[in-house]
Amino acid sequence: MSLSFLLNPSSVAIFGASQNPEKIGGRPIRFMKEMGYSGRIYPINPGRESVQDLPCYPDLDALPEVPQAAIIAVSKERVLETLHRCAEHGVKGCVIMASGFGEAGEEGRRAEEEMRTIAATSGMRIVGPNSQGLADFHTGAILSFSTMFIEEPPEAGPVACISQSGAMSVVPYGLLRQRGIGVGHCHATGNDADVSVSELAAEVVLDPKVKLCILYLETLQDPANLALAAERARARGVPIIALKSGRSPDGQRAAASHTGAIATEDRVIDAFLERHGIWRAEGTEAMVQAAELYLQGWQPSGKRIAIVSNSGATCVLSADAVERYGLNLARFAPQTEDVIRGVLPDFAASRNPIDITAALLTDSGLFGKVLPEVGADPNVDILMIGIPVSGKGYDFERFAQDTADFMRTYGKPVVLAAPQRLVREAFARKGIPTFETEDGAIRALAQFVDHMALMRDAVGGSVAPVAGVGIGQTTLDEFASLARVAEKGVRVPGRRICATSEEAQDFLAGCPGGIVLKANSPQIPHKSEHGLVRVGLKTPAEVARHFSEIKTKLGEMDVAFEGVLAAEMLSPGRELVVGGHLDPVFGPVVIVGDGGIAVEAMPDNRLLLTPFTQEDVTVALSRLRIGPLFDGVRGGKGLCAQAVFEAARGVAELLSEGEVLAVDINPLITTTDGATAADALLEVRT
Amino acid sequence: MSLSFLLNPSSVAIFGASQNPEKIGGRPIRFMKEMGYSGRIYPINPGRESVQDLPCYPDLDALPEVPQAAIIAVSKERVLETLHRCAEHGVKGCVIMASGFGEAGEEGRRAEEEMRTIAATSGMRIVGPNSQGLADFHTGAILSFSTMFIEEPPEAGPVACISQSGAMSVVPYGLLRQRGIGVGHCHATGNDADVSVSELAAEVVLDPKVKLCILYLETLQDPANLALAAERARARGVPIIALKSGRSPDGQRAAASHTGAIATEDRVIDAFLERHGIWRAEGTEAMVQAAELYLQGWQPSGKRIAIVSNSGATCVLSADAVERYGLNLARFAPQTEDVIRGVLPDFAASRNPIDITAALLTDSGLFGKVLPEVGADPNVDILMIGIPVSGKGYDFERFAQDTADFMRTYGKPVVLAAPQRLVREAFARKGIPTFETEDGAIRALAQFVDHMALMRDAVGGSVAPVAGVGIGQTTLDEFASLARVAEKGVRVPGRRICATSEEAQDFLAGCPGGIVLKANSPQIPHKSEHGLVRVGLKTPAEVARHFSEIKTKLGEMDVAFEGVLAAEMLSPGRELVVGGHLDPVFGPVVIVGDGGIAVEAMPDNRLLLTPFTQEDVTVALSRLRIGPLFDGVRGGKGLCAQAVFEAARGVAELLSEGEVLAVDINPLITTTDGATAADALLEVRT
Repeated sequence: MSLSFLLNPSSVAIFGASQNPEKIGGRPIRFMKEMGYSGRIYPINPGRESVQDLPCYPDLDALPEVPQAAIIAVSKERVLETLHRCAEHGVKGCVIMASGFGEAGEEGRRAEEEMRTIAATSGMRIVGPNSQGLADFHTGAILSFSTMFIEEPPEAGPVACISQSGAMSVVPYGLLRQRGIGVGHCHATGNDADVSVSELAAEVVLDPKVKLCILYLETLQDPANLALAAERARARGVPIIALKSGRSPDGQRAAASHTGAIATEDRVIDAFLERHGIWRAEGTEAMVQAAELYLQGWQPSGKRIAIVSNSGATCVLSADAVERYGLNLARFAPQTEDVIRGVLPDFAASRNPIDITAALLTDSGLFGKVLPEVGADPNVDILMIGIPVSGKGYDFERFAQDTADFMRTYGKPVVLAAPQRLVREAFARKGIPTFETEDGAIRALAQFVDHMALMRDAVGGSVAPVAGVGIGQTTLDEFASLARVAEKGVRVPGRRICATSEEAQDFLAGCPGGIVLKANSPQIPHKSEHGLVRVGLKTPAEVARHFSEIKTKLGEMDVAFEGVLAAEMLSPGRELVVGGHLDPVFGPVVIVGDGGIAVEAMPDNRLLLTPFTQEDVTVALSRLRIGPLFDGVRGGKGLCAQAVFEAARGVAELLSEGEVLAVDINPLITTTDGATAADALLEVRT
Repeated sequence: MSLSFLLNPSSVAIFGASQNPEKIGGRPIRFMKEMGYSGRIYPINPGRESVQDLPCYPDLDALPEVPQAAIIAVSKERVLETLHRCAEHGVKGCVIMASGFGEAGEEGRRAEEEMRTIAATSGMRIVGPNSQGLADFHTGAILSFSTMFIEEPPEAGPVACISQSGAMSVVPYGLLRQRGIGVGHCHATGNDADVSVSELAAEVVLDPKVKLCILYLETLQDPANLALAAERARARGVPIIALKSGRSPDGQRAAASHTGAIATEDRVIDAFLERHGIWRAEGTEAMVQAAELYLQGWQPSGKRIAIVSNSGATCVLSADAVERYGLNLARFAPQTEDVIRGVLPDFAASRNPIDITAALLTDSGLFGKVLPEVGADPNVDILMIGIPVSGKGYDFERFAQDTADFMRTYGKPVVLAAPQRLVREAFARKGIPTFETEDGAIRALAQFVDHMALMRDAVGGSVAPVAGVGIGQTTLDEFASLARVAEKGVRVPGRRICATSEEAQDFLAGCPGGIVLKANSPQIPHKSEHGLVRVGLKTPAEVARHFSEIKTKLGEMDVAFEGVLAAEMLSPGRELVVGGHLDPVFGPVVIVGDGGIAVEAMPDNRLLLTPFTQEDVTVALSRLRIGPLFDGVRGGKGLCAQAVFEAARGVAELLSEGEVLAVDINPLITTTDGATAADALLEVRT
């Protein structure tokens, strides 16, 4: 469904229209008049004949037509009544600027419920309440009251900023404008009672003028539309950068008090965004730091960077920054080094990073001699020029021209790092992205290159919310849990529920490697903490003694005795964990990682959304801290990643069926040729 | 020894003086004339009568006095001859600007050796060669040819920038000047043939006008002087920030090709800087990002931060950033929340972070009402104000005044984050440090607070280089190594070298828990990779078989048989590592951490310089990834940190004696009540 009636309406009515262009009900009118809006503007205010030199109307009935869009800038008490009138008249979309709804308490939440009902029954779409408004600078439809557009005048350009928060729509806008970058869209949706940030984004990324989309999200309640936005954006080659706040527990608490939203586990959001090729920015600066790079249309062939500088220190610092931000220093082809060695003075460095030294002062052509060699080298994907020393006596206009020639000839991404404004300005005039420091330049390049790779690798996929999670659930005991995971192909040890010590001794007879005895009760999830796991029992006498001790201990703990679980001892192996849960918003979420008793204290696990492939699991395992164990250390054979994948697939299948809500296989005893669930715990719907 | 004859000389001669103020031999003269140097300037150039309107002299003999300092801006071929003449005449200090010495090859290194001899025999001190020069803007003694002082005009202020690299002396200078911060010293020492960056720093931090010292180091060959600089700086409360490049392997390689320096293990440098209270900056931006904060003279009482903003989004993002950068969100005292709740509208957040909401638009006094409560709360150490939405209609001059009142009244550090220049400027006029984003503000605050704590906790101490490391060394076998560590109080298992299987079987008789058999040869450091470690042997037959297999295997490997090491089996425990080496520059370096066969593949260890206390080791262990194991997980008892300390102390003692060059105890089998060296390997001088 198109939202063009909000982004490019043929006509806009303003409820609460103000003669004062500095008031909320006045600013949108001023903006639309100033910023070239070509549609019709209808101020509505029963107390005035005209508003800002436009005829003013007492109500909708008095208008010469039904407006496509309406801005609702009246007091909160009058919002619902106004909405109803708009719906009745056939207005297509409303922006509610009034606040004091869901963010203020229960009454406000009920009002938002009514707004959703109005939207659903009438088909009229609603942005807000508590919305700072929408601003499309290409069409001039500025249905927004932000003062930022006064202090940092707009220039319609290729970036779209879309946010729930008003502040976080104009903060990236302001930072981009101060860097001279044009912003075409700046939208703040507020409480998202009807239209969500994600739905709006799915619309905006279809605008052919949009080349980069920056989102600020406090909640992610509408992942289906975000997945759609990402799919459309990837199809058009438009990168999406999202700042999702509330990563930290304190941030989640602050967000909850601010928006009343329920937090999704933050790593699920990471996994979701990654899956859809959306870059997650860590903070405000990371939203905009690489914007210039995205707008060049570059398709980097990899992450191997060449560095050319007239300072040895910059070479060293750049090499450090390359490692810090995860790029790779290019290894030049031998002929590249040979040619460069011939061009540079003896004491200069012809290997990457290339230190052309102060010789640049006497030979302004050095960049022009070196850069074509770097450009032609197939081992180089990207280039950074560092000129920390320059100024009078340096022909930096020529350096800029030589760099621009490189950029045009080889199509490889290139940036400048220079502390001096006049040097940066010379390069910027040639269209080259510039940074103050090598640190900032390389950080931005790394984000850009990694994001391009993320978009290429994105698998996308649809999202279906899961109903009824958290309503009623119960824990299965270990015996039952092992049976359920075994059904899905997870290897489990031989085992038996023993009502008597004799049964356990019988079981021992069939287990030459010995057995383990455990309490088997859903009431005791951490059995070993209570001394209810006895391992390595090899004689009938040992079995009898431990059986009796477990039974006594359960009695002391007031847990009903329903037999002791006897299981065969497993060969030693690494204790891993495979588990997962059903997320109400994102569906099955599976984790794989290091297990054992330190799984919470020293967490080392990765999260996978479904569906996933064996390759996905192998990559996830390789990114663990214990990743080297799957390759083998000190010449030994690696742990069997395929067995971990099979266990993870079994967990995913269990969760996908909808009845199992959570699975915890810990430890999954993993060796070089297999993996066996030594313990399992399932939560199921009642 | 004072270097004032270089920083504030009564007279300066310039060899290679140029009439052209844009040449290397002309620029210092121009600078000194323009920047208020009150001493006497003596251009020396046999070809000219006058230079830049000053009388010019043919040589030193012709001067009316012996100059205190000399700038040597002649061609490299004439440098040594000029130096000799200066030394003969009694010049106190020279700055050599000519390049092409140590950085260019062997011949240049020999020339630098001669420079050191001249300095040592005459007492004349030498800066350089390859030095961009020294600039003291307080005295106007600008013995430097940097063009940066033209593009970013100096203003003598409280910051000192000292660097080997010319570029990295003026890059922080430029970044600071662009932020309006005054720089009093800007020195680039070049190749450090005589005076090192560290020695110069030890002099500069005595300048009472210096309040912040920023260093760029490519090598750290003179740690004794850096320790002295740090000690003097701490005594005066002057923070030192050091950017030490070459952290990454590629960076080290680039630095080696740039300066020919030998790399010290980077973590040793971390430990050294930490010990002396010097903050290590990660990159160029981190050198200057917190400069404004250091210059306020604040003494933060802790790292508990309060956030006050008119945007809920900024509150959430700030809470995230607080966690990201390791500050703590302050928990207000109950009465603080009560009072704030009374002041703010119903829907505003009275807990930290405080969201005063858009109500700020109608009540400009809200900051003034809230801030005194925050200031008086003993649980608040620092404050950030975030104003992402402002502009026309907002009384930000008043907000700035209210914030300045807070700062003056409570003496607590406070910063502003605001994307709009006019808001930042209003706060800056009141002396409040300002940032564009909450991310940058909180990152800078975290650095500042952590650095102040680092200075308070610094233990300092002297540094003595160790001679002869790397000249001749040999590896001891395990039996001998265990004996040496046992002498220092490290617990080792019962053990015996057995020439025959019968001896091993005898040994078994005394070990009820079984024994382990191992090859005992310094030629095989990784015995288990070759199948030369056999554990858990409990019967004479097992012992006989494995003894024979080990002996056969050694024969196949062509290793001389000198008996098999039999040792008692240890109770299971966590495999840790304790080891160390003798660093030629920094002395004994000890590591403690997670051990076993994955010690290289999954490193998790910390490094300690000597001397260290039990507390130091406990802190180091707690910062490990396996740190929780020392507290105990899931209700269990923690590993014995004291036993690890004792082993580390033993290693430190061994190394301090000077004969042992390296120690590797891996694994150190550690349980809840002790630690035993299951293996040890020592390198000793031959």
